[in-house]
Amino acid sequence: MKNTFLSFEQVSLSDGFWKKWQQINAAVTVPAIYDRFAESGRFDALRLDWKEGQPHPHIFWDSDTAKWIEAAAYVIEKNGDTALIEKVDALIDLIAEHQEECGYFNSYYQQFQPEKRFTDRTDHELYCAGHLMEAAVAYHRATGKDKLLSVVCKYADYIEKIFVKEQSASFVTPGHPEIELALVRLYEETGELRYLNLARFFVNQRGLKPEQQYEWADPSYSQSHLPVREQKTAEGHSVRACYLYSGMADIARYDSDNELLNACKAIFDNIINRRMYITGGIGSAANGEAFTIDYDLPNLTAYSESCAAIALIFFAHRMLMSELDGKYSDTIERVLYNGFLSSISLDGKSFFYVNPLEINPTLLNRNRSLLDKSEHLPITQRLELFGCSCCPPNIARLMATVGGLLYSQNGNTLHIHQYMAGTAEFDGTKITQQTSYPSDGTVRILVEKYQGSEIAIRIPGWCRNWQLRVNDQPIQPRMEKGYAFFPCSSNAEILLQMEMATEIIEANPLVTENAGRAAIMRGPVVYCAEGADNGENIHSIWITDELDAEEWDSEQFGCKCLRIDAWQPAPSQSLYYPANKQPSVQKRLTLIPYFGFANRGESEMLVWLLKK
Amino acid sequence: MKNTFLSFEQVSLSDGFWKKWQQINAAVTVPAIYDRFAESGRFDALRLDWKEGQPHPHIFWDSDTAKWIEAAAYVIEKNGDTALIEKVDALIDLIAEHQEECGYFNSYYQQFQPEKRFTDRTDHELYCAGHLMEAAVAYHRATGKDKLLSVVCKYADYIEKIFVKEQSASFVTPGHPEIELALVRLYEETGELRYLNLARFFVNQRGLKPEQQYEWADPSYSQSHLPVREQKTAEGHSVRACYLYSGMADIARYDSDNELLNACKAIFDNIINRRMYITGGIGSAANGEAFTIDYDLPNLTAYSESCAAIALIFFAHRMLMSELDGKYSDTIERVLYNGFLSSISLDGKSFFYVNPLEINPTLLNRNRSLLDKSEHLPITQRLELFGCSCCPPNIARLMATVGGLLYSQNGNTLHIHQYMAGTAEFDGTKITQQTSYPSDGTVRILVEKYQGSEIAIRIPGWCRNWQLRVNDQPIQPRMEKGYAFFPCSSNAEILLQMEMATEIIEANPLVTENAGRAAIMRGPVVYCAEGADNGENIHSIWITDELDAEEWDSEQFGCKCLRIDAWQPAPSQSLYYPANKQPSVQKRLTLIPYFGFANRGESEMLVWLLKK
Repeated sequence: MKNTFLSFEQVSLSDGFWKKWQQINAAVTVPAIYDRFAESGRFDALRLDWKEGQPHPHIFWDSDTAKWIEAAAYVIEKNGDTALIEKVDALIDLIAEHQEECGYFNSYYQQFQPEKRFTDRTDHELYCAGHLMEAAVAYHRATGKDKLLSVVCKYADYIEKIFVKEQSASFVTPGHPEIELALVRLYEETGELRYLNLARFFVNQRGLKPEQQYEWADPSYSQSHLPVREQKTAEGHSVRACYLYSGMADIARYDSDNELLNACKAIFDNIINRRMYITGGIGSAANGEAFTIDYDLPNLTAYSESCAAIALIFFAHRMLMSELDGKYSDTIERVLYNGFLSSISLDGKSFFYVNPLEINPTLLNRNRSLLDKSEHLPITQRLELFGCSCCPPNIARLMATVGGLLYSQNGNTLHIHQYMAGTAEFDGTKITQQTSYPSDGTVRILVEKYQGSEIAIRIPGWCRNWQLRVNDQPIQPRMEKGYAFFPCSSNAEILLQMEMATEIIEANPLVTENAGRAAIMRGPVVYCAEGADNGENIHSIWITDELDAEEWDSEQFGCKCLRIDAWQPAPSQSLYYPANKQPSVQKRLTLIPYFGFANRGESEMLVWLLKK
Repeated sequence: MKNTFLSFEQVSLSDGFWKKWQQINAAVTVPAIYDRFAESGRFDALRLDWKEGQPHPHIFWDSDTAKWIEAAAYVIEKNGDTALIEKVDALIDLIAEHQEECGYFNSYYQQFQPEKRFTDRTDHELYCAGHLMEAAVAYHRATGKDKLLSVVCKYADYIEKIFVKEQSASFVTPGHPEIELALVRLYEETGELRYLNLARFFVNQRGLKPEQQYEWADPSYSQSHLPVREQKTAEGHSVRACYLYSGMADIARYDSDNELLNACKAIFDNIINRRMYITGGIGSAANGEAFTIDYDLPNLTAYSESCAAIALIFFAHRMLMSELDGKYSDTIERVLYNGFLSSISLDGKSFFYVNPLEINPTLLNRNRSLLDKSEHLPITQRLELFGCSCCPPNIARLMATVGGLLYSQNGNTLHIHQYMAGTAEFDGTKITQQTSYPSDGTVRILVEKYQGSEIAIRIPGWCRNWQLRVNDQPIQPRMEKGYAFFPCSSNAEILLQMEMATEIIEANPLVTENAGRAAIMRGPVVYCAEGADNGENIHSIWITDELDAEEWDSEQFGCKCLRIDAWQPAPSQSLYYPANKQPSVQKRLTLIPYFGFANRGESEMLVWLLKK
């Protein structure tokens, strides 16, 4: 049995936390990315007439453009933005104009090394192709226009010819997964089974034989160390990894392939039980942008790429389609409110590529006797554009489609996964969520003309006490894997009341970096202490079990902020001294949502506070 | 007024902690280094007949050989080892044979780029020359033989000609200091003022004008960012730095140059108050082997090079000649018992170049998806030889001469700086120390036929309670800068009783890495917890103020070991959970002297323990 999600198109968010973010996305983020991409030459690159003196195109610029088109399509779908349609059409015209007769399209290869097509596994050609497919599907659904869809179908057919029929490429599987999940989406949109077959081909071939790697990489860097069904741990470049795992989960679902699904389950469990930051960030090493080893989760040098957080949501979302288990929806929620949202500034214009859990600006100058002073420390302020700017349009496309993560159906059961104010309409049924989540834990759900017989509503893993009422009567639902099941038909008013307390969270003792430390969460939101509120040397501040927490609504962060009891050692002139010589001074520590850090200038930031 | 030290030649250690180390040094270390250097081609390189297929000489191999000669000379001085004399003479013959008529000698340049002599500031020519001078002085004092001394005098004269008279070199000051302090020693041995003048020249010229740097280095890397008198913080490559500071302290002392002395004082204070590990290790960054910024003292990635620890002793020793202050002798003691001794295995054969304060072997594989998996983590076991093997002979020469750090005189006052069992004889006076320090804090000092009128004995900074008795009578000495002054003439029996408790030491709250952590010291010895005794995941073990410490004599480490109360969180399957969900289990934690870590196979090691 498969769980079929309502698409974001069927869900309209109303005033509330995520609606505000979607408004910023449409009004600021999508236009801002367009402008930065235009200025940086990404769109001109599609003209295939690069001249000396212009910014030099990069091998994956097509994917940036494609992801922007995809994000724009989602905004158009909801808002019908005519000016945006014109911009997208102009880009699509350029792509269609330059597609080769055979179907190939890659603005970089066609201009700079036309004879080397499909000879370098690490050069992102199939990755770019995959993103064009996702863009085409999104734009076709948004507008009914099929120009880009035709382009990518023709391209997909050409890829099938080269990689499957002729096997004339220099490699078998892409160095950067993405096309697998994209081909599944192309199949879903067109109904053409050959695209699903091609996706399955790329998934199944991976790891069967040695393939080209970067000269500095182990095969696990591109998840090619083992056949996919034998992979049980998350390895290598974390974005590559979770794009692949998403494609694997798709194929497992369509093929009812339990061996493949079990590999996905093992990998997912490995991630959430051993290799994920409390923020949902993954890929702890800048070196290789990669998963490392179990429990290796450094805070200051955390890589935790924005695209990897997004890819983990993709993976979890697809796992939820095969298996209703709160660990998947809990993970989606953990990423959404923390490691995903941290990647964008509150004004929607600037982005983090890397999302550390600690910032200490003084350390940026630690290598003062070297010309390259920064080592691998993350930047401390968000930027409007990166040389490798994969993250911004990825953020925009997810932001526009979070509504697609809320509901799924399986037979006569409707699943409610996430809490966001808004309305869903499907098959004559209307579901309305009224909530100010995550500011508080009360969710009122109005069900109208429901055709099924049962509802399953997620009780988040963070929640210790909750009550469920239907039509004002308390009920005792059946609990299964984090979901509360109860009968429901036709109309009903469901009231879920989740106690949302300020909680002290510890990490597994094997996480070296967090030994003796604790994080503060309230509901799904991870908090941090920032220098802007708390002065310097936050690393030395300690808390106890007695927080005496006070909370208030913050307009700036759209969420509660907190104040708790803490202590900080007094300054000293000595470097080493007998214990307890230095008194600690009590102070009230202000905590803001982690996602909101670095919006008030450069300052220290810390998630994991000392706890005595 | 200058404090004149008794040389190591005037001090004979007897049974006790350091005597054992000196015996190992003479019997094992010096011969082992000779063998490794011979095998690796370092001595053959002096033949200037390198052929394809042989190990290729390196630009600083002459300095390795010179430091070994110097160490051997000290052993010969004490033990009169004939076989060793023959080995040294053979090396000196090769050097003398190949010295050019003009005086130049550099086995690398003469063979591989004779036309480039003194054109590359970063190529260590003057550094090698300096070490040859130190070797020559030591061997002349040990044996009276002057062949090498003649070589280096001629070379020094040539250097003076090129750098001062002709100014025909491509640079003014050496990229790697060493020759400054070496020229002072050459002056002290020969009485030739021109060598002191040349040392002063190199000190004074530094930082006056921009000079060549490595292409990746800031001028501060080689302490060339400012004129020396304007330098107030310890910067750059830490060995270069402390060799230079030693030379600066020498010139300041000879010239009574207060401006230069004040620069040295400021730099010394900067080191010990802000940039030194609790072990006395300095230079916290592998990147540049360098000092970084105040309070930046990472434990796992600590560089803390063995040569830098030794160089800090050189610097402190020279400062003590100008100013009697316990901070200098405390620092010497801190380095000797910790960051210096950790650099050599208990059997005397193997060495650390880098001395971390934490070892976590599992992290060595964290970059598992990359071919280069190790990042910048230090090696976990000592080696017999390094490609850059500057440390081993440096360790050997200091080990042989620790007796030279014990006593100094100023007018009618004798200063007693360090506690080591043994006898010093000078000017008809005999001083005998009886002690099992650092195993306990009782030192009995017999003074015979003392010609002065006063003694000043250091009360270590680590000591909180002590008693001083002279001829069995308690006395109330005058305290000044960490020294207890009391009248003494002719014969006396001094009894210093220092309470040596197991102490919990904290670091300045600005040391990020040590926040919430504490180290255990007993007397001058820093302790660590090692996996060999305590199992895995030592980072999660926590202690409180109640240690319930138990101590015992360890034959293996030649020092007390400790056992204290500690707690460790029980294992968990979850990655994150509410605080206090995981119980902690009480255990007795075994601590060994830090210097003894990594002598029982690879395992975890930790100095800074969690403290609640």
